[in-house]
Amino acid sequence: MSHPVSPLAPAALPSLPAVAGVRLATGAAGIRYKDRTDVLLVEMAAGTAVAGVYTTSLTRSAPVDWCRKAMAGGKARALVVNAGNANAFTGKIGEASVERTVKATAKLLGCSENEVFVASTGVIGEPMADDRLTAALPGLQSKLNDDWTAAARAIMTTDTYPKAVTRTAKIDGVEVRLQGIIKGSGMIQPDMATMLGFIFTDAAVAAPALQALLTKYTPRTFNSITVDSDTSTSDTIILFATAKAAHAPVADAGDKRLSGFRRALEAVMRDLALLVVKDGEGVERLVTIDVTGAASERTARKIGLAVANSPLVKTAIAAGDANWGRIVMAVGKSGEKADRDKLSISIGGVAVAKDGARVEGYDEAPIATHMAGRDIRIAIDVGVGRGKATVWTGDLTHRYIDINGSYRS
Amino acid sequence: MSHPVSPLAPAALPSLPAVAGVRLATGAAGIRYKDRTDVLLVEMAAGTAVAGVYTTSLTRSAPVDWCRKAMAGGKARALVVNAGNANAFTGKIGEASVERTVKATAKLLGCSENEVFVASTGVIGEPMADDRLTAALPGLQSKLNDDWTAAARAIMTTDTYPKAVTRTAKIDGVEVRLQGIIKGSGMIQPDMATMLGFIFTDAAVAAPALQALLTKYTPRTFNSITVDSDTSTSDTIILFATAKAAHAPVADAGDKRLSGFRRALEAVMRDLALLVVKDGEGVERLVTIDVTGAASERTARKIGLAVANSPLVKTAIAAGDANWGRIVMAVGKSGEKADRDKLSISIGGVAVAKDGARVEGYDEAPIATHMAGRDIRIAIDVGVGRGKATVWTGDLTHRYIDINGSYRS
Repeated sequence: MSHPVSPLAPAALPSLPAVAGVRLATGAAGIRYKDRTDVLLVEMAAGTAVAGVYTTSLTRSAPVDWCRKAMAGGKARALVVNAGNANAFTGKIGEASVERTVKATAKLLGCSENEVFVASTGVIGEPMADDRLTAALPGLQSKLNDDWTAAARAIMTTDTYPKAVTRTAKIDGVEVRLQGIIKGSGMIQPDMATMLGFIFTDAAVAAPALQALLTKYTPRTFNSITVDSDTSTSDTIILFATAKAAHAPVADAGDKRLSGFRRALEAVMRDLALLVVKDGEGVERLVTIDVTGAASERTARKIGLAVANSPLVKTAIAAGDANWGRIVMAVGKSGEKADRDKLSISIGGVAVAKDGARVEGYDEAPIATHMAGRDIRIAIDVGVGRGKATVWTGDLTHRYIDINGSYRS
Repeated sequence: MSHPVSPLAPAALPSLPAVAGVRLATGAAGIRYKDRTDVLLVEMAAGTAVAGVYTTSLTRSAPVDWCRKAMAGGKARALVVNAGNANAFTGKIGEASVERTVKATAKLLGCSENEVFVASTGVIGEPMADDRLTAALPGLQSKLNDDWTAAARAIMTTDTYPKAVTRTAKIDGVEVRLQGIIKGSGMIQPDMATMLGFIFTDAAVAAPALQALLTKYTPRTFNSITVDSDTSTSDTIILFATAKAAHAPVADAGDKRLSGFRRALEAVMRDLALLVVKDGEGVERLVTIDVTGAASERTARKIGLAVANSPLVKTAIAAGDANWGRIVMAVGKSGEKADRDKLSISIGGVAVAKDGARVEGYDEAPIATHMAGRDIRIAIDVGVGRGKATVWTGDLTHRYIDINGSYRS
C-alpha cells in the first residue's frame, strides 16, 4: 500500500489559510485503514451555495448518485468524505449506507438532508462500515478547526502526497479566497476508486453561476488529464461558496465583476488536476500535449487524449525515446478529423515532422536532452482548422504494473 | 529485437499444403533486417478474385491507400509484402515508392497494375528503400514454390513465432482449401507497424461475395482482438480466391452451397486473430471475455473491448488477481447501456457478482486456480438485452514495457 513519493511531487503543500464560513475536522474511523485518519467532516455556514461535476460512468457509486440528487437544492451545509471504501457496486446496501450517513450528519448539524454531501473512495464492491463513520461524526463536530493540511491527508488512498491549491481573486475590489483539496493517483486507484476534489470559496456567488463556471472549465482542466484511461465509478468535484466575503452577491456567471474570480477558479481547477497527474501511478515524467489545427476544441482534446492514452506513446516516453511515429499512429486512431499530409509534430520545441513527413536532418541532441527531463512537451498540429486544446498525462513505467498488479490486501 | 517465444505459442506450425493457383517465394532484400528473409512475392492464377479490409486510421500508410484503390477491380495476380519498413507517414515519397513497386511487379508478371497488392510493415516515417525490393523481384519470380512456412516467416517483424492456419470446406461436394498467414504482436509493434493477414483459397467465389463475407466476419474476429488498444497505420487483411477448384463458380455470398465455406472462413479468420493475441507483446495469459445481455452485438463488443483495454484489468490479470471491481469500472466507462443493478460477472465459471452486487461467500479457491492458468475466462451479463459478443486479449506485464520501452535500434 505504501509507495515512494512521486518524483513529480511539489516540495511542500502551500500554506493553507482559513476560509471564512468553512470549518473542518478529521478522524480515524478505521473503515479500512489502521493508524491513519480516514474521515473528513466539513461544516459550512448557512447560505453556502454548491455546484458539482461527477463521473459519467454507468456503474457510478451510491455517493455520486446521492450528490447528483442533493445538488438540485443548490445549498450545502456539510461534506463527509471517507477513504478506504468507495461504496460502489454495493446495490441497495450502498444506497442505505449513504442514507444513514446523510441522516446522521443532518441531525448533528441541524440542517436539511439535501444540504449534506457525501464522497467515498477506496475499494469497490464491498459493503461499507458506515456505522464506524457515523459513530465518529459527533467527535469530529466537537473539534472543527482550520487545519486544511490534515483534511488533504485524510482523503488520500494510494496518493503518495497530499494535494491542495489556494488562490485569491477580487470581486468588486474585495479579496476572496479559492482553496481546494483533491485526491487521486490514477483515474482509478489500485482497487481504490478515484479522483475526489473539493473547492471552497468565501465568495458570494449563486449556485447556478457556480455550476455554469464549473461546467465550463471542467473539460479543459479535470477532463484534460489522464493517467491510464480508466474512468472511475466515483469521480467527484464539488465547489462550495460560503458567501462570507464582503462584496455584494453575484448571480450571473457572465457578470463582469467575476472576471478575476473566473480566472482564479480555472487556475485552481487546472492546478488541482495537475497535482493528480503528477501523482499518477508510477509516473516519472509529466507530459503536456498541445494540439492545434483541429476542427474544434472538443476534437483537439479527443486527439490529445488518444495520444495521452496510447500505451505505446507512454512506454516510449518512459524510455526517453522521442518516438514520433507512435504519435502519428495515435492521432490516426483518434477517429477525429486530421490531414495526414499536413500533420506536424514537435517535441521539446524541435520540429520532427512537418506536412505529413519526417523533417530531414533534424537535430536529435536537444530532443534527447529534453526527453531525459521530467517535463515533456509535445505539440501536434493536425492541419484542418483552428481548434486547440492541451492535455496532460504521465509516462507508463514498470512501477505502474507493480502498483496495480499487487493483490488486494 | 529478439524476444523469447510467447508462452502461448502453438507447439508448431500446422502442415501447410499447396493451394491451387498460388505460388510463393521469399527473399532477403535487406530493407532493414540483416540475415533474414524480409520480402514475400505471391503469384496468383489469372481469374483470382480479391476482397480486403483495412485499418480505419486517418494516418494510414501508402500501401493501404493503394490496396483500397486497386481492390475496386476485384481481381488479383500478385501480392508483395515486405517487413522492416511500414512506408507509413512518408507523404508523396511513400506514394511514389508504392507506385514503383506496383509497376515493377505488373511488368514482371505481365498483369495490370490494379491486380498487384502491396503490404508493408515495420518502422513508421522513414522513406523505404523500394529499390532493394524491386531489385529482388526477378529473383523471386524465378523460384516461385509452395513453401508456406517460409512465407509466414518472411512477413514477421517482432513476432515471436510464425503464424498460419489451414482448413478445408466443401462446395458442391468439391473440397476447397482456405489457408492464411498473418503477422502481428500488438495492434502495432514496437515501432513496427502492425497486423497483416492474407487468406488464400482455391474456391471459385466472386469478389463481391468474398468482400461481403470478409466484411461480415471481421467484427467478430479481427476486430474483436486487442493487445494494447493502439490501432496501426497499416492493418490489412486480404482474401484471395483463385477459382482453381472444380466446383461451379459461386456469385452470391448467401448461396446455400457456401454454408461450409462460410463456417471455414470465419474459423480461419478467428484462428488467425487468436494467433496474434497469443503473440501479443509480453502476454502470459489469453483472456476471453464473453459479454451477454447487451443492447446489441455491437454494444456487447464495445463493452468487451472496454474491459479488454483497461490497463487496470490487464495488470490485475497479470498478477493473478480476480479483481472484478475493475471489471465493473471498465463496463461503466464503456459508455454503452448497462444496468448497474443487474450486472453479473463470473470468472472461470464462478459467479462473483450478481444483480449489481458481490455474491456473498463465493468460493475463492477455484478462481485462484483458474487465475493461475494461461486461459482466463470472464463472463459479463449487463442485463439490458440479448446482444452478445466475445472479445480476446492478453494480460499486461512488465515485458510489454520492456519491449516497447527499448529505443528504436
